[in-house]
Amino acid sequence: MKLVLLGLGQVGLSLLEILQQKRFNPGNTKFELKAVADTTGVAEIKSGTSIAEILAAKKSGGIQSLAGWLPGRRVKEAVTEIHADVLVDCTTTNFKDGQPSLGCFNEAIAKGMDIVTANKGPLAINMKNIIEAASRRGTTVRFGATVGGGTPFIDFGRICASTYEIVEMRGILNGTTNYILTRMDEGVSMESALEEARSSGLAETDPSNDLRGMDSAAKIVILANALCGCSYSISDAAIKGMDAMEPALQAAAKSQGRSMKLISTYRREDGLVAVAPEIVSLSDHVNVSGAYNALTYRTADGNEYTLIGTGAGATETARAVLRDLLSLPHPVGE
Amino acid sequence: MKLVLLGLGQVGLSLLEILQQKRFNPGNTKFELKAVADTTGVAEIKSGTSIAEILAAKKSGGIQSLAGWLPGRRVKEAVTEIHADVLVDCTTTNFKDGQPSLGCFNEAIAKGMDIVTANKGPLAINMKNIIEAASRRGTTVRFGATVGGGTPFIDFGRICASTYEIVEMRGILNGTTNYILTRMDEGVSMESALEEARSSGLAETDPSNDLRGMDSAAKIVILANALCGCSYSISDAAIKGMDAMEPALQAAAKSQGRSMKLISTYRREDGLVAVAPEIVSLSDHVNVSGAYNALTYRTADGNEYTLIGTGAGATETARAVLRDLLSLPHPVGE
Repeated sequence: MKLVLLGLGQVGLSLLEILQQKRFNPGNTKFELKAVADTTGVAEIKSGTSIAEILAAKKSGGIQSLAGWLPGRRVKEAVTEIHADVLVDCTTTNFKDGQPSLGCFNEAIAKGMDIVTANKGPLAINMKNIIEAASRRGTTVRFGATVGGGTPFIDFGRICASTYEIVEMRGILNGTTNYILTRMDEGVSMESALEEARSSGLAETDPSNDLRGMDSAAKIVILANALCGCSYSISDAAIKGMDAMEPALQAAAKSQGRSMKLISTYRREDGLVAVAPEIVSLSDHVNVSGAYNALTYRTADGNEYTLIGTGAGATETARAVLRDLLSLPHPVGE
Repeated sequence: MKLVLLGLGQVGLSLLEILQQKRFNPGNTKFELKAVADTTGVAEIKSGTSIAEILAAKKSGGIQSLAGWLPGRRVKEAVTEIHADVLVDCTTTNFKDGQPSLGCFNEAIAKGMDIVTANKGPLAINMKNIIEAASRRGTTVRFGATVGGGTPFIDFGRICASTYEIVEMRGILNGTTNYILTRMDEGVSMESALEEARSSGLAETDPSNDLRGMDSAAKIVILANALCGCSYSISDAAIKGMDAMEPALQAAAKSQGRSMKLISTYRREDGLVAVAPEIVSLSDHVNVSGAYNALTYRTADGNEYTLIGTGAGATETARAVLRDLLSLPHPVGE
């Protein structure tokens, strides 16, 4: 299976490390990395160039020092110029227009490539068209890594959806804000909690998409589209972030043994897709603390299933990318 | 897909109702019921006999009134005499010797039939041999309905196990005892709580396998075998049931804001497979109340995933059987 990897941030590098160390069961899949790209440009991976060399290049000067460096190319040209089977997108999410990934996705589908993405941007903006275009072209788009890091909220939802109609999903889909809210419950100020999250690698340098609820909104949009046949984009979601939270309400909730959480909701009944701070009871299955994510799936039969897991971490997200790669339909040994 | 259905108790009847009402997406699977069997004997289902007629016969005199009634046959002869693709076992679990299902399984595998079972008995006693025999014969055994009713603890575990090594599983796998323990926490006596569980259909007429921990033990054995490459039988498990619980300890736990739960554990480190009453903290993700089941999967990387869902109910278990049927490998349209 020939791969083009876009994005050499924490997730992309973790994926390379897992592939290098072969810490997984490849089944009958044989991976072959054909190109890598980051914000500096594109490098073709010549046969004989090892993953260790790519990691070393990235750590020292950058991928320009690789033998296959293609001067003057941008990310998208890794897709147009390189022959590969799968586009792996580990670039940073851009909620404004989904670029440059959105363009890469369109190009990859036109070329008949499959796509595995950890980047929420293109799906949050234009998921329906991407999936439909891939379906028409006979290619596959997998996006397990866009929601829940290593916790398989989408794959689990597909199991449920195979025999049940999911009519509601509700829970915590952002580990960064949940960590901050938990620490605030413990008496730490929001600023200090954010600083802690940053220094432990839980929060990005610019955590505004987390704090403003955009990240949570993109995830519930992707879940509703993937599991409930919806065609939402992030602009359809009603979004209140942590900035909309009243500290007095959090204190009041705590004094009643309850917690303020940033809750994502999809509800089929009235088509609601929303993110907002909510007070949840202690016995609510989605009332988890720290960096955990938790989602309750409610079915038309009135059943409820809740999945809880850590929702952050580059290694975990890279594992989810790998899981998607391994599940792609492909001929034996490729 | 031609089926032989063993067992017309609550689960078997629920399955027939779901098939009759076509309340599911069959994809490209077409089910054809060839025979049903219960403790009274075996009836072949002639073409022209509808599922509604079987349900009506069962409700009135019994399946003897069906046109295809085969006088003098026992359950196993439904497998030997009828040509079908899949044996569906919804009979009652027998932990002593797994019969008559164990004999039916062996016969079905020898004939090249697939097996879908909601009955834990044969697997709790002889899982390794059954799976190996099926594998040698090229047939498939599915048993999603044996653990968690409609909550897909096995299917979810398989997703985890595809990229992680599961090194520990721990949680509540019996809804009946969890309901009773929850009600006892609320001040109800064990006898009254059991009576409530019986009258609401949560407990069987003879709930001793639940109370003595046998049901929970069979489930953790099946999970460890299915997900962690073990070869346990129920005789390998250290089992303490609710009868081993000290009421004083439960009261003490409650006064500290904790709960007494019947916890099933598998731990790779020392090969432990056990069921025992344990005091769990309020923040423990498996501390769920009522008829809920909950299981935490811990991986070699130190990640934890917890799945929570209702663990009882004939309809839910029948849905799990259906999910397994739909996931069997089979030619299109059969």
